Amino acid sequence: MRLGCLVAFVKLECTRVDLFGVLVLSFAAATAGGLMRDLLIGAAPPAAISDWRYILVPVLAGLLVFWVPGIVRRLRHAVVLFDAAGLALFAVSGTQKALTFDLNPLAAVLLGVLTGIGGGIVRDLLVNEVPTVLRREIYAVASLAGAAVVVLGDWLRLPPAPVAATAALLCFGLRLVAIWRNWNLPIAEPPRSSNP
Amino acid sequence: MRLGCLVAFVKLECTRVDLFGVLVLSFAAATAGGLMRDLLIGAAPPAAISDWRYILVPVLAGLLVFWVPGIVRRLRHAVVLFDAAGLALFAVSGTQKALTFDLNPLAAVLLGVLTGIGGGIVRDLLVNEVPTVLRREIYAVASLAGAAVVVLGDWLRLPPAPVAATAALLCFGLRLVAIWRNWNLPIAEPPRSSNP
Amino acid sequence: MRLGCLVAFVKLECTRVDLFGVLVLSFAAATAGGLMRDLLIGAAPPAAISDWRYILVPVLAGLLVFWVPGIVRRLRHAVVLFDAAGLALFAVSGTQKALTFDLNPLAAVLLGVLTGIGGGIVRDLLVNEVPTVLRREIYAVASLAGAAVVVLGDWLRLPPAPVAATAALLCFGLRLVAIWRNWNLPIAEPPRSSNP
Repeated sequence: MRLGCLVAFVKLECTRVDLFGVLVLSFAAATAGGLMRDLLIGAAPPAAISDWRYILVPVLAGLLVFWVPGIVRRLRHAVVLFDAAGLALFAVSGTQKALTFDLNPLAAVLLGVLTGIGGGIVRDLLVNEVPTVLRREIYAVASLAGAAVVVLGDWLRLPPAPVAATAALLCFGLRLVAIWRNWNLPIAEPPRSSNP
Repeated sequence: MRLGCLVAFVKLECTRVDLFGVLVLSFAAATAGGLMRDLLIGAAPPAAISDWRYILVPVLAGLLVFWVPGIVRRLRHAVVLFDAAGLALFAVSGTQKALTFDLNPLAAVLLGVLTGIGGGIVRDLLVNEVPTVLRREIYAVASLAGAAVVVLGDWLRLPPAPVAATAALLCFGLRLVAIWRNWNLPIAEPPRSSNP
Repeated sequence: MRLGCLVAFVKLECTRVDLFGVLVLSFAAATAGGLMRDLLIGAAPPAAISDWRYILVPVLAGLLVFWVPGIVRRLRHAVVLFDAAGLALFAVSGTQKALTFDLNPLAAVLLGVLTGIGGGIVRDLLVNEVPTVLRREIYAVASLAGAAVVVLGDWLRLPPAPVAATAALLCFGLRLVAIWRNWNLPIAEPPRSSNP
């Protein structure tokens, strides 16, 4: 289970939410990506609610973060590592699930990326921010690379297990190197404010 | 039909929307919770659109609020009562519907709460605010209590009708007492701004 | 394919997003309306992802807008025309698809409008703005008129092709006249700030 719920807490700096709000943000950050994937491929009810452990774990994580303030700051290096590992796991497993539902390769990549980044997007929207993943950092691109490797391996009929491991390592490594070297994508140039 | 659409109007203070915007907010506040529940349990098309009365009633309520300004303020005590009654009705019926689709108890509670509070969340997101329900007031907790009673009664194989009545009264009463005594959940302590 | 993705770029004035953000906004603006319609009528996976061309075209449009800054401003008259044409196409085809899934007339109109305006709503929410379509301009009303004509024609058992053409022309014309004459819907009167 991805620790995105912990990262959700950092978002609270400008938005005071109550205990229930923390639990909702925690659940959303952990499951919204896979939940949207399952709705899109027609796998209702989504695994995120049909398996009660997917509900319980983010709730417990949210309670922990709520009752032990400062835990995210103290464990911030571990949080970054677990978040990158979760991104890799989600992107790879999301792509695999989309492939088993016979979607085209482009859609499988898209759903793998959505599984990886969807939770963070919903979390940011709930606290009224433009999702971080749209603005900066090599985050989506790392999940894109992992998802593309899974699709390519499936297309070449390579054995799934080593392909998944390679894809996950690529995503994980790319994310960590991007943090370490502070890599970013180019930013859109805004239109000049003076309308001609 | 819950009068969440009336409450939607109070949101317009900082956001000038036009007639169409009022109708969208009214429809979203009244139906988005049940609509998301139906998507999640795989009951497409959702009752909120397959039954035309669920479309018509919030549209009429929205028109009323739009053409009779001040009606929400004058009827504010009635609005609070109807809103609490709607919350109880939605939480109980949402939980029951989830149980009939064979979801686990935790998911049934979650979907009952979602049915009760989902409309207000979507309404707040559409006017660009952090959803009230995440920030303050005993609102979600009241629906949680009602949903939990329904699930408990189902688990103990108690007769559904008295269980539903008890659950609805608990939710309704808890909500009104919370307003009367100004109860709130604890607020998340924000991380200190100085990053060490 | 609607050029809403180009219009998405205008939104970037206040929100600096990166290349990935531009692609997400472009894909969302182009497909979110039809995607929500398909989820609501139970047509999973939605056409927007099961047909890879619906993924590729907005991605290419997003890349074009990103790499050729100023293109939206230079082509702004064409963008407005294509956007109105896309609105008409989406509203009419969305209503037709809802009717083939045996939804009631009110729901078919609602889904037609959603197909037309849903992409712009999601795009605006992602960059943290109150959706333009809720605030001003005859945009939703134009799609409403087109959708209503399709439903009326279906109810009167008129031949589909001329009905669709009439509906699309009505929507397209209404939108252009509304821009030309600067028509708007009445705005909701905000409640007085002093609570009695």
